[in-house]
Amino acid sequence: MRPRVLTTAAQLRAALAEQLAAAGPGPVSLGLVPTMGALHEGHAALARAARTENDVVVATIFVNPLQFGDPLDLDRYPRTLEADLEILGGYGVDLVFVPSRQEMYPGGEPLVRLSAGRLGARFEGEFRPGHFDGMLTVVAKLLHLAWPAADAAYRAYFGQKDAQQLALIRRMVRDLSFTADIRAVPTVRSAEGLALSSRNRFLTAQEADAALVLSRALRLLAERAVRCEPLDLESAVALVESQPLVQLEYFEVVDPDTLEPLAFNCRETPFSGEALALIAARVGSVRLIDNQPLLADPAGT
Amino acid sequence: MRPRVLTTAAQLRAALAEQLAAAGPGPVSLGLVPTMGALHEGHAALARAARTENDVVVATIFVNPLQFGDPLDLDRYPRTLEADLEILGGYGVDLVFVPSRQEMYPGGEPLVRLSAGRLGARFEGEFRPGHFDGMLTVVAKLLHLAWPAADAAYRAYFGQKDAQQLALIRRMVRDLSFTADIRAVPTVRSAEGLALSSRNRFLTAQEADAALVLSRALRLLAERAVRCEPLDLESAVALVESQPLVQLEYFEVVDPDTLEPLAFNCRETPFSGEALALIAARVGSVRLIDNQPLLADPAGT
Repeated sequence: MRPRVLTTAAQLRAALAEQLAAAGPGPVSLGLVPTMGALHEGHAALARAARTENDVVVATIFVNPLQFGDPLDLDRYPRTLEADLEILGGYGVDLVFVPSRQEMYPGGEPLVRLSAGRLGARFEGEFRPGHFDGMLTVVAKLLHLAWPAADAAYRAYFGQKDAQQLALIRRMVRDLSFTADIRAVPTVRSAEGLALSSRNRFLTAQEADAALVLSRALRLLAERAVRCEPLDLESAVALVESQPLVQLEYFEVVDPDTLEPLAFNCRETPFSGEALALIAARVGSVRLIDNQPLLADPAGT
Repeated sequence: MRPRVLTTAAQLRAALAEQLAAAGPGPVSLGLVPTMGALHEGHAALARAARTENDVVVATIFVNPLQFGDPLDLDRYPRTLEADLEILGGYGVDLVFVPSRQEMYPGGEPLVRLSAGRLGARFEGEFRPGHFDGMLTVVAKLLHLAWPAADAAYRAYFGQKDAQQLALIRRMVRDLSFTADIRAVPTVRSAEGLALSSRNRFLTAQEADAALVLSRALRLLAERAVRCEPLDLESAVALVESQPLVQLEYFEVVDPDTLEPLAFNCRETPFSGEALALIAARVGSVRLIDNQPLLADPAGT
């Protein structure tokens, strides 16, 4: 079933009020799935999680110019609206908000924005200056636009794939007291292990094959972590660098909340038993990112 | 009557839900009056306006460290909680949120913040770097904390006295799609014309007297504007500078929304008939700001 499409903020608010009222009486729940379209199985997992947990599900499709540093990247970002609506409908999403740029930024680019601070300056922030400020600005705006005007639990769904984005959104919610509960959905991968991304379609078959080294290196670390062995990040880096089609940009082990570098000593306090390996590389004309939660199981050795 | 005092976000949300439910059934309204305490007649005007227009009124008292550049200014900012509660109770405010610094910023100072952009870099922003980022951050947070989880009109009240703050909050609401309606309340003045401010108590009698030149200069411009005469800003500046206890910092005529400099040509398009004169000066140890909307009445000449 094709979901109901709203193109203005006023339409969205009216439709949400109607749906939430119909879901009542009594406390209800709303799930928000923000996307930039070009949907793949990773987005489908977000929609599925939101559908399972909420009375009303709204997805948004908006290719946010604020978070693109490079106008070429913005221009070539894939737009596949009809297919996207079919996918969202297939997962039972009730409403899809598809605003124009003019509807989102009627006064031109926003003057007042969110600022990601030092958490947004590292890793992706170093390679994409301003990206996270733009991302947080549009996520804050979307959280405001869909904020239920009713006694309703409010949940928003993001992929674990974009780990730094997720950490920043969690931090924003805490720092600025948004009421929405941020739900992380595990990364969806191809059968071979490549993390799904809207940009994967720009990889040649050979590049896609080479890119598998990223998830292979991450899995290596996860296996060492769970066995409580030293991570030996250097050998994992060497593995990635042995692949000539892949230019490694960063590969680090960090705290999942603060993204501060972390020494993975699985038997020592204050290590909490949870770390995150972050990787980014350029493969052909495409930047790819991936990550892997590292869970130590000292008892399992 | 002493209003109900809430010190945690959870208490505030529970009390708001209760009060909004009691005000129903059917659409209700909530007025928010954010303050830093040390209340005077200017704040009383905000509370009065909120009480007149809404079913439920919540005020907040929080001296926000983020918006003070100078730690001394923060330290000496007056705290008069008991008197403040009495004033708010006297105006029929239902709830007062008085969070600790720890309650507002449990993880230390927020990493993710609002950024005022170029609208926050001029005038007050030039003299108080970071002030408007800090102000917007806390106002966004308070708007989130009090956001009604009900079918309710939501209004927030700010003084015209802080004209740049007001312009920035309006811009934030528009750029980031907050639902709150921002209501401006006219500046309250002493019988002699001095704009009320929590900092006026630090003026000596002689300085308070000297400070009257600010409002006198603003009135001069307003009178010329309404008669559709040239403003002759230079003569108004000269008037202020003739007062030796007053060090003028800026005195300009701007567009009330964009704060861009404006040529006041009351008979010419595209001049919309509305301008704003902004003034700031140091008097003794105190920085004072004031402003005056300039309304042209071409027909009245």
